[in-house]
Amino acid sequence: MSGAKLTKIAEALPSTVPFVGPEAAERQRGTAFTARLGANESVYGPSPKVLRAIEAAAPDVWMYGDPESHDLRRALALHHGVEMSEIVCGAGIDGLLNSIVRLHVEPGVSVVTSDGAYPTFNYHVAGYGGTLTKVPFRDDHEDPEALLRAATETGARLIYLSNPDNPMGSHHPAQVIDDMIADLPDGCLLVLDEAYIELAPDGTAPLIDTSNPQVIRMRTFSKAYGMAGMRIGYAIGEAGVIRSFEKVRNHFGIGRLSQQAALAALADTEWLEIVRAEVARARDRIAGIARENGLTPLPSATNFVTIDCGRGAEFAKTVLDALVARGIFIRMPFAEPGNRCIRVSCGTDQDLDRFAAALPPALAEAGSAMNDG
Amino acid sequence: MSGAKLTKIAEALPSTVPFVGPEAAERQRGTAFTARLGANESVYGPSPKVLRAIEAAAPDVWMYGDPESHDLRRALALHHGVEMSEIVCGAGIDGLLNSIVRLHVEPGVSVVTSDGAYPTFNYHVAGYGGTLTKVPFRDDHEDPEALLRAATETGARLIYLSNPDNPMGSHHPAQVIDDMIADLPDGCLLVLDEAYIELAPDGTAPLIDTSNPQVIRMRTFSKAYGMAGMRIGYAIGEAGVIRSFEKVRNHFGIGRLSQQAALAALADTEWLEIVRAEVARARDRIAGIARENGLTPLPSATNFVTIDCGRGAEFAKTVLDALVARGIFIRMPFAEPGNRCIRVSCGTDQDLDRFAAALPPALAEAGSAMNDG
Repeated sequence: MSGAKLTKIAEALPSTVPFVGPEAAERQRGTAFTARLGANESVYGPSPKVLRAIEAAAPDVWMYGDPESHDLRRALALHHGVEMSEIVCGAGIDGLLNSIVRLHVEPGVSVVTSDGAYPTFNYHVAGYGGTLTKVPFRDDHEDPEALLRAATETGARLIYLSNPDNPMGSHHPAQVIDDMIADLPDGCLLVLDEAYIELAPDGTAPLIDTSNPQVIRMRTFSKAYGMAGMRIGYAIGEAGVIRSFEKVRNHFGIGRLSQQAALAALADTEWLEIVRAEVARARDRIAGIARENGLTPLPSATNFVTIDCGRGAEFAKTVLDALVARGIFIRMPFAEPGNRCIRVSCGTDQDLDRFAAALPPALAEAGSAMNDG
Repeated sequence: MSGAKLTKIAEALPSTVPFVGPEAAERQRGTAFTARLGANESVYGPSPKVLRAIEAAAPDVWMYGDPESHDLRRALALHHGVEMSEIVCGAGIDGLLNSIVRLHVEPGVSVVTSDGAYPTFNYHVAGYGGTLTKVPFRDDHEDPEALLRAATETGARLIYLSNPDNPMGSHHPAQVIDDMIADLPDGCLLVLDEAYIELAPDGTAPLIDTSNPQVIRMRTFSKAYGMAGMRIGYAIGEAGVIRSFEKVRNHFGIGRLSQQAALAALADTEWLEIVRAEVARARDRIAGIARENGLTPLPSATNFVTIDCGRGAEFAKTVLDALVARGIFIRMPFAEPGNRCIRVSCGTDQDLDRFAAALPPALAEAGSAMNDG
């Protein structure tokens, strides 16, 4: 009665999760968080029109969703001025990253990313047996030149770049990204994760050029559109690159309600403006709270603010733990030099009142711990 | 400006879809179907309590779903009398099949299934470079002895078996499956797809034995529970086998509403009884319509009836095309000898009225075509 062997790749993989979810942390703590500011979700919620679309479509959930996401792709194509054949939908950017990595990465293949960037991408690269090279952030920005250099040195097949980036919240203007694209080595695909693009200043997103098979853009309804729990995102790219998803994707994997909700979300540009304004207001408030406590908020092009706690990684981790112990769910960057910071998602006024109340005692506690240590 | 190379496996894969969805077929036709009887969905819909759960949870969709599906797994563990560590949730059985194949299949690995069984499983096996051996159905049933023999001969790491099966609608009693499990070669895992189990006669499902690492059971909310569009299913197995999913699964891939909806569905046993009764009534009606037209309905333990059209594969395909041309969406088995049949999902009274009206002219048309041929 012996079980089936795992593949060579799977055998070597740890059983892991790229992030511990807030619900799991709550179960460990035994109590709920009073402010959920750790997952860069949109506390402002989806558009009221999205809620109506969900309600209207709910009785139809006995039907599988359209495996082609035809209506949504048509709307997205119009929205972005591209062809439907240049768009593929997926169950969030996580699902799309899985597919693009699976298509291109096997043992012996090199991939380049920034140290401290999205762990789920790294999880996929490891999951398909690739070799990951990480280059450090520079001045709290991802470093296109270093990424290109590493890609050239390692003969990388993929480069991952988020713009705006998580976890620092910084961004590059479109020209920097366009210059990077122009300098991509042959045979290397730039996976440009634009999860936060709707919240970034104008001029952050390069013009979409679907004639270039070396760039694929990832977008999501999880952030500005407030639909993280609906699991829907999309990729835009050259038609041949997009068509390759048909080799491996889970065709019936996108929920019926998710497609309807995304259509409604895309159409409600007014709600997006409201969210943008709320996010800008919350960013300012978080930055203000940081400064009042002697900390340094970094500029943010996203729906979170990364705060430099000023005393290194151990201090930042102690501040994070002290906030979590006070019911404030936040996260922090994983890697040097970002890990001198904590990362706080935009919240409601009440969420930020609670953060503002918890931060001074958390800093005091962390300060004592450091002085004792 | 040359794109990134695909992996050796991906390079060899076709861009394909295991099924053409009904929406795609409607777009090709230019008109909507008047009866949707081809995807074995549950026209009776989800429980009204599911709809209320979706409505109640909708404002929370700005939050990611719990990546551990904790509450749902707890409820499922109670329901099945197993431990939470013996259950993993996924985005439908399709998603779970992807993970189990990915964990075990690499080039050089043999896998066994029945010829004409679920194409999405085959899609995954090809997608990870495995070698698939297909054994024929026998007497319109999957053939455990032949599957075991082929597994032994090829040193297979996985056997796929659906019970009740799709597309014939037949089933084996639990004892046959238990005997098969007892005879599994060492190192071979039985992937037991029980998508239709809630609609099968008592005594179809073997007792769940999570001490055995050679069996994994796949269940779904897409069929009897009427939630195909919500993308949620689960697997039950030995804790080590279940834990291996953590190596590769998309942890945040299950929607927040889907988890809430599944909890509500599982709790509403009354609705499940109503659906069972409706399915039984619709099966009888479909069988009656078949007989009235001189065709032979096969016994069904599912929410569809497979109908032997009596004149071979070409005739059955012509009947299918003639029904589709009349707005009746159905499918048919892909492979000999099942492809002498058409497959009709249980429908509403109106759906089946339309099927009953379309079948005689479709048969007449197919008969003429055959006589002309």
